[in-house]
Amino acid sequence: MLKLEEKIQKEGKVIGSDILMVDHFLNHQLEVDFLATIAKEFANHFASKGINKILTVEASGIAIATLVGLYMNVPVVFAKKSKHSKLPNDCWSSDCESFTQAKSNVLIVAKKFLSEKDKLLLIDDFLAKGNAMTALLDIAGQASADVEGIGIVIEKAFQGGGDALRAKKYDLLSLAVIESMSENEIKFRHN
Amino acid sequence: MLKLEEKIQKEGKVIGSDILMVDHFLNHQLEVDFLATIAKEFANHFASKGINKILTVEASGIAIATLVGLYMNVPVVFAKKSKHSKLPNDCWSSDCESFTQAKSNVLIVAKKFLSEKDKLLLIDDFLAKGNAMTALLDIAGQASADVEGIGIVIEKAFQGGGDALRAKKYDLLSLAVIESMSENEIKFRHN
Repeated sequence: MLKLEEKIQKEGKVIGSDILMVDHFLNHQLEVDFLATIAKEFANHFASKGINKILTVEASGIAIATLVGLYMNVPVVFAKKSKHSKLPNDCWSSDCESFTQAKSNVLIVAKKFLSEKDKLLLIDDFLAKGNAMTALLDIAGQASADVEGIGIVIEKAFQGGGDALRAKKYDLLSLAVIESMSENEIKFRHN
Repeated sequence: MLKLEEKIQKEGKVIGSDILMVDHFLNHQLEVDFLATIAKEFANHFASKGINKILTVEASGIAIATLVGLYMNVPVVFAKKSKHSKLPNDCWSSDCESFTQAKSNVLIVAKKFLSEKDKLLLIDDFLAKGNAMTALLDIAGQASADVEGIGIVIEKAFQGGGDALRAKKYDLLSLAVIESMSENEIKFRHN
């Protein structure tokens, strides 16, 4: 998505070798009008998939997932991050190591909100190694729900999570795919 | 808001004396079409206030704040919950005790996202004792931003946070105000 690449190129800030700061529009301050444009891209791309529910992760997946839900006219469920060692037994759960926060979470979703009748679109703001997405896929699998697509705003391809999902034949749409980045340069992949 | 009261009456579940479960539409699963109706109520009510930014708290405030931002055409900033004892010095922060989670958080907002030029609408899903809202007001005050209004989806009036804000002359709009509740009955306040 050219407008997104231009925005990242112009306004994003690379820290070290693998952190991209876009907290002014995507994951701390939310530029809602721009996120709405992004959400419409997802809604259009996945329009024919029969999706009846969106699954995302708190907190930074919620805004974009909500807007996709609005344009696709389906509800959203967000997985919660738990640090409790004792999990409620009415929840599905999956371990998830956070890339940016260097700590381990358990993602949980109440069982009543996912079932084998669901055709899911999984949405998240970033895809790096794919830890959060792997946990969401695990939870969807536990619920016997179908995963019809995965929508990512920014994929850091050099960390491998996206290509691993493509190898597993998921319909993955990443609106900006970063091939490599440094403090001086961000290169996008287009193939 | 009658439609919201009816929905709470029909679908909400009271646990003990002070927990209202509405996680099927408001704070775990998100019924986006219904939340959009709620968001339009806030957008209409606060339309003349010159609001240029919405401030909310992760995680369950984000969905409703995003939709209000969409209809008011302004960005959203969400305060993050931190448990770190050492906070970054480029952030404003305020202590916040969570009512439902019985633990203490620090809310933080990057300084670059709030300033004395901002005219804020504060949004949250629930208002009980008002701890989260007090922390947001504290942060807005640190930034010298004006608070033009406060929008709450469900206020539990019997816990006092709402009336304390009204006493301080804030323009508080709570779309459903629960006067009292038990497992058998939920009573709303309309005056």
